[in-house]
Amino acid sequence: MLGAVLYGVGGPGQHHTWLSPEIPGDASVDIRWYIARAQQAEAAKFDHLFIVDSQFITPDSPNHYLNRLEPLTLLSAVAVHTTHIGLVGTLTTSYNDPFNLARRLASLDLISGGRAGWNVVATGDGGTAGNYGRAEHYDYAARYGRALESVRVVQGLWDSYEDDAFPRDKERGVFFDRTKQHPLNHVGEHFRVVGPLNIERSPQGQPVIFQAGDSTEGRDLGATVGDAIFTHAQTIEQAVAFRDDIRARAAALGRDPDLVLVVPGFTPIVADTDEQARATERELVGGKSFERALKELGRPFGWHDFSVYDLDAPFPDLGEAGDRSFRTQAEAIKRLARTRNLTLRQVVEHSIDAHRSPFVGSARTVADEIQRWFEAGAFDGINVGVGVPSEFARFTDEVLPILRERGLARTEYDSTTLRGNLGLPVPENVHTAARKVPVAATATK
Amino acid sequence: MLGAVLYGVGGPGQHHTWLSPEIPGDASVDIRWYIARAQQAEAAKFDHLFIVDSQFITPDSPNHYLNRLEPLTLLSAVAVHTTHIGLVGTLTTSYNDPFNLARRLASLDLISGGRAGWNVVATGDGGTAGNYGRAEHYDYAARYGRALESVRVVQGLWDSYEDDAFPRDKERGVFFDRTKQHPLNHVGEHFRVVGPLNIERSPQGQPVIFQAGDSTEGRDLGATVGDAIFTHAQTIEQAVAFRDDIRARAAALGRDPDLVLVVPGFTPIVADTDEQARATERELVGGKSFERALKELGRPFGWHDFSVYDLDAPFPDLGEAGDRSFRTQAEAIKRLARTRNLTLRQVVEHSIDAHRSPFVGSARTVADEIQRWFEAGAFDGINVGVGVPSEFARFTDEVLPILRERGLARTEYDSTTLRGNLGLPVPENVHTAARKVPVAATATK
Repeated sequence: MLGAVLYGVGGPGQHHTWLSPEIPGDASVDIRWYIARAQQAEAAKFDHLFIVDSQFITPDSPNHYLNRLEPLTLLSAVAVHTTHIGLVGTLTTSYNDPFNLARRLASLDLISGGRAGWNVVATGDGGTAGNYGRAEHYDYAARYGRALESVRVVQGLWDSYEDDAFPRDKERGVFFDRTKQHPLNHVGEHFRVVGPLNIERSPQGQPVIFQAGDSTEGRDLGATVGDAIFTHAQTIEQAVAFRDDIRARAAALGRDPDLVLVVPGFTPIVADTDEQARATERELVGGKSFERALKELGRPFGWHDFSVYDLDAPFPDLGEAGDRSFRTQAEAIKRLARTRNLTLRQVVEHSIDAHRSPFVGSARTVADEIQRWFEAGAFDGINVGVGVPSEFARFTDEVLPILRERGLARTEYDSTTLRGNLGLPVPENVHTAARKVPVAATATK
Repeated sequence: MLGAVLYGVGGPGQHHTWLSPEIPGDASVDIRWYIARAQQAEAAKFDHLFIVDSQFITPDSPNHYLNRLEPLTLLSAVAVHTTHIGLVGTLTTSYNDPFNLARRLASLDLISGGRAGWNVVATGDGGTAGNYGRAEHYDYAARYGRALESVRVVQGLWDSYEDDAFPRDKERGVFFDRTKQHPLNHVGEHFRVVGPLNIERSPQGQPVIFQAGDSTEGRDLGATVGDAIFTHAQTIEQAVAFRDDIRARAAALGRDPDLVLVVPGFTPIVADTDEQARATERELVGGKSFERALKELGRPFGWHDFSVYDLDAPFPDLGEAGDRSFRTQAEAIKRLARTRNLTLRQVVEHSIDAHRSPFVGSARTVADEIQRWFEAGAFDGINVGVGVPSEFARFTDEVLPILRERGLARTEYDSTTLRGNLGLPVPENVHTAARKVPVAATATK
């Protein structure tokens, strides 16, 4: 399983990519840029594109965050210039009505012929609340409660029509079978939605659910509703432990763990030799990276400004900062600083190290490492960060052929739907399934 | 000014169009259908496409309403297969956050190179409330209060960045000028939005605002914020009176009435002779049209079921039905029935007449009528309903050439933006304008 995470002019840890002559200065708002990258990934038989998102910015946000296209508007345009690659968009359950989420994702799913995916997020940036009329961001319990309920409502709405609801028989003049339209009548803790949705299912039944939270609540949400889990991993041990944990949670919930794919994100650095790749890496993490890492360290703490502290004093006591933002990340940083007794400078240096790619070297070295991680059970696939096109091409044109030779990457698409390519079954419409129960009961009498 | 209102398998009054062999049974959810119609309209140099919408359906809804693509997802896909035609999507202010509206419309505007338009609606179907967690639809005052405030917030967010906020100077390493990013800090009756928006302005500055309300509140909203007003008209007198009214309201608000374009919707019926066109019209309004008109009569009254009444008894007393739906339409029907003492059957027949196109005849007759209406001041342009492609082609290939000869329709696009083609100025960014004030003050000292 191969995903391509598309950035324009540079996400976190990629601030300098916009300086590349290969990247237009307005790449993040240029649909031609995204279409070209999508076609590049599709030519390399990637399973999907992945578009991250946020709805809160400050003047200090990374370049790509300052000014970018909304994910689903973007992916819809990409859909009609591609034919096989999956299209996964990030949409938050904290600041979208489930009815609108269901409609927009189902529309993308039909426009793309069954290639849509939804990366379900609950929104980490606490400041987002201010853009949606709230004085404070939802607390953790409310965020994840809403997320789970929202996914269930959206999935319920996606089944509003059974697959044979529209006979469209012009000879008999029968367009619609009204018995195959179903309202939802959902009444829950966070949402009340009557339904039905005004759109039918796509060839893959329902969009694929991606999930990316790392907290206990996030892992449970992923294990409960996720078809694929987007994550980050720094070491093979950490990756294996995370995947084992997700699989165990899914199994405990009665799900087949093989249908919950764990997909960490990496940006491989490929050069002619291992030494050249390491030199490229040093360039990337050098320069102004400390200053930027200091700014980005603030994000999990609600964009806390760390520049006011003495870098060589112990890591400051931040109290409850981060409780309404990226809590798990914030707590991990606090814990690290406390247990190792680190200064602020050491914490920043640690965060720079944490962004380092474990896949750095010649094409063969990178292919070997990916194989080693995969065989150790570290992942079911990877999401590759796409910045400079020629760097991405080194991965697609040099690393992938080696993985293909070893039977670890596809040579052709299996299907025209995202579920088909990921080997995930088409979920049966719940109303069609319910209709079958009495028949089965009769048959066994 | 020429707009094309795209339906798939038939909107209100178009129930039978899906039976045409030219229309795929799944046209309303087939992006290829919309792209082909958009290209057909663009070849005829139409100013814009217009996509209507609703978020509430029942099994009795018109075919096209039962199952269709969400407007902006649809238009984004159309944007990358067209180059000049404007893309106007209907989005309600009652059930969308202004921050999301602003982002999605601005994304479409950038993807299309400055061709986006927003048809601002406050939602007529009262049942929509149930899909968004509300027991009851907003009352009229709240709906229009929200609509006006929402448009102002969205327009404020669209100006988050001044046009020179992104120098993108790779040589000097300057991506962004932080002094050109502006939060909104809006605190109003219905919305609180801090901002800024995370997307820059398009070549046309801001999307074009369309508005379609016919009530006093709707007309005031259109006169206040509308660049173009979508309406319906049955007679030339009614159309002239509506346009005069909108222009007077706009002038009273200090706006230039020539920058508020009135654009009624029509579906011309063109045949070789006037007699043949009238025969086609009789077919369209014949058949099952009474039964369907009876159902559709219920819509302004919250999909009230009129089939339970005696058709030949006086029009029933409906009390407050319609007060939270399409109030102006519902009141007009009640008033008509009361003042003329009509039976239910007569009201239905009247509604069938009201859907009749005033433009029925040979190409020359239709061109003559359009010219007569235009010269009488009935409209600034028309929105043409697009159903069967060959019928639309009779308008584009036979009527338009006559109008072009007379200088009443364009032979070439003036611009690649919607504002450019409509002759509307690019609105100056409010922060850039504010920045100029002190300079002017100094200059006049």
